[in-house]
Amino acid sequence: MDEFDLIRRFFVRDRVPGVSGVSGVSGGRAAPGVHAAAILGPGDDCALLSATTTAAARFAVTTDLLVDGVHFFSDVDPQTLGHKALAVNLSDLAAMGARPVAYLLALALPRADIEWLEAFACGLHGLADRYEVELVGGDTTRGPLTIAITALGEVDPAAALRRDRARHGDDIWVSGCLGAAAFAVREHLRGHPLPASHPARTRLEKPLPRVELGLELAKLSAQGLVHAAIDLSDGLAGDLSHILARSSSALGTSVGAILWAEALPCHECLSGLAPADRHDLMLFGGDDYELLLTAPTQARGVLERLGGLHRIGVLDVGAELRLQEGSGGERVLPNRAYQHFRSESGRR
Amino acid sequence: MDEFDLIRRFFVRDRVPGVSGVSGVSGGRAAPGVHAAAILGPGDDCALLSATTTAAARFAVTTDLLVDGVHFFSDVDPQTLGHKALAVNLSDLAAMGARPVAYLLALALPRADIEWLEAFACGLHGLADRYEVELVGGDTTRGPLTIAITALGEVDPAAALRRDRARHGDDIWVSGCLGAAAFAVREHLRGHPLPASHPARTRLEKPLPRVELGLELAKLSAQGLVHAAIDLSDGLAGDLSHILARSSSALGTSVGAILWAEALPCHECLSGLAPADRHDLMLFGGDDYELLLTAPTQARGVLERLGGLHRIGVLDVGAELRLQEGSGGERVLPNRAYQHFRSESGRR
Repeated sequence: MDEFDLIRRFFVRDRVPGVSGVSGVSGGRAAPGVHAAAILGPGDDCALLSATTTAAARFAVTTDLLVDGVHFFSDVDPQTLGHKALAVNLSDLAAMGARPVAYLLALALPRADIEWLEAFACGLHGLADRYEVELVGGDTTRGPLTIAITALGEVDPAAALRRDRARHGDDIWVSGCLGAAAFAVREHLRGHPLPASHPARTRLEKPLPRVELGLELAKLSAQGLVHAAIDLSDGLAGDLSHILARSSSALGTSVGAILWAEALPCHECLSGLAPADRHDLMLFGGDDYELLLTAPTQARGVLERLGGLHRIGVLDVGAELRLQEGSGGERVLPNRAYQHFRSESGRR
Repeated sequence: MDEFDLIRRFFVRDRVPGVSGVSGVSGGRAAPGVHAAAILGPGDDCALLSATTTAAARFAVTTDLLVDGVHFFSDVDPQTLGHKALAVNLSDLAAMGARPVAYLLALALPRADIEWLEAFACGLHGLADRYEVELVGGDTTRGPLTIAITALGEVDPAAALRRDRARHGDDIWVSGCLGAAAFAVREHLRGHPLPASHPARTRLEKPLPRVELGLELAKLSAQGLVHAAIDLSDGLAGDLSHILARSSSALGTSVGAILWAEALPCHECLSGLAPADRHDLMLFGGDDYELLLTAPTQARGVLERLGGLHRIGVLDVGAELRLQEGSGGERVLPNRAYQHFRSESGRR
């Protein structure tokens, strides 16, 4: 147990707010306009969190579990792993338009390897510092390497970027460029891994969650200029399908989509590939951690001015997800959304 | 993936609040005095939570990781496992004086065994319903059986039962009775497991977190009539040591404790054991999930009237945790607190 007490210390930073006393609880509250704060950090039965931005602010909360051999391999660079474990959770907060506030880390480790832990904590803290997210609690135990992170953010519910608000006629937009991480995975699986410095490896291993963009989009959402959003973790087709499924359920009628193959923003490292190959990586590859959103046509100007967003398709009344190719051809993409919607209906 | 979509459905209940629209967000808010509510449940990037009891209410958050072969064995009854996985988190909320509100479940499973999942969900939901705690999100993946639950509760920070507020001269109190779960573990390890219906097995496998007691104690804490509290998961000696360590750090001087062996509330199933044996199980056994608290002497009357609490010792200025035995003898218990305190100091 002492060994694991030690491990915990790797993740507890110097600043533990609010330990100075009950009087410090109110005295230590952030001023209005400053984002939410931990009143009590690690070391007690629970952490205490306070939302202080506005009266309307609420907590968004998400959790992700990363398992050795499923989400990564034991020989992964631990710094990279620390970065990515937090990044995938911050990406979920970004996709909700929430400002990251705090996170909890539950970690199972086969043994206390100090060098490994230092590197893991370094990756974690590097990203946490970038977004001013505070580790407020957690749990450490012996076991197969497993990382469960829960992240909390602050968001006004009326501004939150939900999946279930897409409407027929919405434009479909995506941030950044796609396919690089999937390319790195594919090359690895084919037995010729890319060098560690290759930009596609960086995209796979050190994704930067679109936190700032999420906050901008939440402001637009509160004005009705963004309808729905999701982050791209499983691939554009699958993640868009989640929006279609949830929005279909909410509307009580099918919401389908047409994507324009030529409009998909392709990462430059895919430029040497055949178009079909590129499209497969962009549509089904995953690990992009960009934001996908739907918005009414009157939002085009404001979304273009944000920069870095690409209009890639449109929502329609069909029940399908279709890809329009440059040749004028069209193909139906495997539509997990429709299946999802059917099985949800079948459950009732 | 579809298999795991299916699994997720086991845990998503019929009622998903607030999905009816943005207008539903404010319309769906609980009335003042009603406890916090999930504005948005599972199925989006994050859950959305709102604290609505009082303006002062804040969130308490805790996470626990249960790993196959460390915290339980693969052949454990899955209903029991579901119950206990949530119970240990609710016990942390109780130890903070927080009202449980919501939880997230991250689950790794080697395969989708429907029968196992139904039983696990049944154990989880049974306890969740008892305390009106809502599953608001989670993650499911393939991997070695691992359960990470994050629980959120609501508490006024000025009433929260912290570990770091114990003071010299405080009485030490504990709820319920001790040692039964440890007795069940010991008998199992000795190769003659108790029958499933044995009360000690029930204490081990289906602990009931002291949620209501925690809420009562929080009211007293706000009046200065309870100083510090923790839940008993690792054994009375170890958990009391956490209070001593945190309070010593906060005070900047040693806080020690004397426990009275004869006053320790012994579970009736230990009555046939030798005193030394009984004391070992009560002090070092763990898994009791009772609440341990320290309180000023003027709280004696009110704590006695609460019922079910036992006064078992007193805090003093020593740096040790001592056990006074009926014979008049005294022994120093392994004091993890002091070590903890020293290593914390050494870190700076």
